[in-house]
Amino acid sequence: MGGATSDSGALAGWGPGPVSEAEAMGMALELARRGVRGANPLVGAVILDPAGQVLAHGYHRGAGTPHAEADALAAAAAAGTDVSGATMVVTLEPCNHTGRTGPCSQAILAAGISRVVYAAADSNAEAAGGAAALAAAGVDAEGGLLAAESAELNHRWALAMAGRRPFVTVKTAQTLDGRTAAEDGTSQWITGSAARTDGHGIRSRADAVVVGTGTVLADDPQLTARDELGGAARRQPLRVVVGHRPVPDNAAIRGTDGRFLQLDSHDPEVICRDLYGRGVRHLMVEGGAQVASAFLRAGLADELVAYVAPVLLGAGTSAVGDLGVQTLADASRWRWDVTDGGPARLVGQDLRLRLEPVPETGATPAEHHLGSGPPRMNTDELNPPRTEH
Amino acid sequence: MGGATSDSGALAGWGPGPVSEAEAMGMALELARRGVRGANPLVGAVILDPAGQVLAHGYHRGAGTPHAEADALAAAAAAGTDVSGATMVVTLEPCNHTGRTGPCSQAILAAGISRVVYAAADSNAEAAGGAAALAAAGVDAEGGLLAAESAELNHRWALAMAGRRPFVTVKTAQTLDGRTAAEDGTSQWITGSAARTDGHGIRSRADAVVVGTGTVLADDPQLTARDELGGAARRQPLRVVVGHRPVPDNAAIRGTDGRFLQLDSHDPEVICRDLYGRGVRHLMVEGGAQVASAFLRAGLADELVAYVAPVLLGAGTSAVGDLGVQTLADASRWRWDVTDGGPARLVGQDLRLRLEPVPETGATPAEHHLGSGPPRMNTDELNPPRTEH
Repeated sequence: MGGATSDSGALAGWGPGPVSEAEAMGMALELARRGVRGANPLVGAVILDPAGQVLAHGYHRGAGTPHAEADALAAAAAAGTDVSGATMVVTLEPCNHTGRTGPCSQAILAAGISRVVYAAADSNAEAAGGAAALAAAGVDAEGGLLAAESAELNHRWALAMAGRRPFVTVKTAQTLDGRTAAEDGTSQWITGSAARTDGHGIRSRADAVVVGTGTVLADDPQLTARDELGGAARRQPLRVVVGHRPVPDNAAIRGTDGRFLQLDSHDPEVICRDLYGRGVRHLMVEGGAQVASAFLRAGLADELVAYVAPVLLGAGTSAVGDLGVQTLADASRWRWDVTDGGPARLVGQDLRLRLEPVPETGATPAEHHLGSGPPRMNTDELNPPRTEH
Repeated sequence: MGGATSDSGALAGWGPGPVSEAEAMGMALELARRGVRGANPLVGAVILDPAGQVLAHGYHRGAGTPHAEADALAAAAAAGTDVSGATMVVTLEPCNHTGRTGPCSQAILAAGISRVVYAAADSNAEAAGGAAALAAAGVDAEGGLLAAESAELNHRWALAMAGRRPFVTVKTAQTLDGRTAAEDGTSQWITGSAARTDGHGIRSRADAVVVGTGTVLADDPQLTARDELGGAARRQPLRVVVGHRPVPDNAAIRGTDGRFLQLDSHDPEVICRDLYGRGVRHLMVEGGAQVASAFLRAGLADELVAYVAPVLLGAGTSAVGDLGVQTLADASRWRWDVTDGGPARLVGQDLRLRLEPVPETGATPAEHHLGSGPPRMNTDELNPPRTEH
């Protein structure tokens, strides 16, 4: 865990003096936003000494990496800082289960932390119970501080876990005018190799990737995750084909590692339920447009990652298929994801854009707290349409 | 010109010591990139004392604002710095004509500058001759230092001026999936008010804005430039309707200020030639898709500004119409414009993306110098298509 300390420098905008637990939670939320959206919630942690001095901090960098609490404890250990008797301020209730990493509740106890202040309770049934375990072991565990802000940050993740389905990332690779292939069907390559490598990074963090039979028959993709040098990534997702048409015996997607599955369904709810049952917590939908649109229509897209090439086609296959939208008021509305370095990043010659769905009114207490209903584009006008054009 | 000094702080990455003229030109190019693409070229200027110490610097902030040389001279004057006997290092040959601002050659002479080093010669016939005028007045004027880099920066502007046509900005306001209206035609509003205000900023800097008769008949736009508060901007572009159908007498675009024109043509070349003859140097194409596509097809788009709403429609009107592209190899290829703060900026709830055309091979000496042919997406592969998917 030596790498855990690499980002543990001073937090921008926060001075060196002692802070309140609420201020520490603000820091922890800021740290959480540095993480990568995906299978796991965004979580940040700050360790305070009894006087309110920050001893260490950490955050979760994505599936397979240490949880925020462990990251902060590792940072403290690397600096030779004793945290016994200290307070752990963390944006999510410490987990109590052994997933890819050990239970945080045990790590906190082992480090001698005497108080834990967390924001939101863990809505993942498998991981919950950390606060109770800590309290049973004599730790002063208190929840609810800035809970709304933490819930807001992980709104979609919590929805997915509460619904016992995977967090779903829909990926597109398109031209600026929303095309994934030219009129004659040519599509290799719309985006450049850097964007594809970046997409493979998402694949390697996901538990499963999904494509339709149409994509398999047209493109014969491998769907493995590869690293920058073209080698196989350490983690490989389950490769899932959805649809009724048979996958040829020699299709590349079958591979030789046994991590291949065909589901005889086009229904995103069925697909999500089945895959959740197989342990899939982060699902990446790679296409084509029909499969992606089915997840979008069903409201089962928690994140949208669009690699946009600086290319115009003016015609050809659309990146997004029929969403059942007739009029603008019914459009599928998102918002740019400002976590992880902002909504847009230049990846080679392409732009990577990241979006999250606009929360529906009344969906969670967090939105009520923040007073943010869905932005209605037709009500933000100071002037009537004619003078605004 | 008091405001001219506001950006005149230290240049990032450059120490306080003396610099060579080539290093100063590198600074000037960096300054130039802070400007706004449009009617005028991007230009930066650095004033050096005889020992190579930087006395002042400046850049051009867009049409109607001081040229880079004047900006640098104003910064020096504001700081009470005497520049007599100094060297002006500037990325473009100083102009010799009185446009919106006085001739820079005269300002340079008046300030007592004794040497001028410039990168590229001015390709604007009306403004050229500055170097000769300076030399005639006894100033040591030398051109060609980092000329290729300067030419590259202003490649499209130089092409436009050499072709005696306006620099053309094509603007779109679209969904992420490239739609400008839903299936039933509803389009107000795809993008939010902040994006529209930002677009009005481009309008107020342009000399003319163009729409087709279809847009006039469908939307009845005013096409005036308005400021953040909804009032009329100080500068107003000429409002141009192109096409054969008559513009109704009560159409909003006619206005009452006489700055309205209809051109009975759909041919971008004809439109550009006519408007250049009327003094238009920066033309903004606002739509609809048919007019925008005509300019794109004709290769008469020097800049593309896309306001992208975080919205998906899945169907409806496309932002870009037929470009005559059948296959990916013939796609309209651009590159993200990294000047002026980078290719993407969050404007309210929307993203503003800026692109420039990929230079064609052999188009200018600058590209030969830099060895940058057009990026061919199908040659950047280390792996064959199948293993890359």
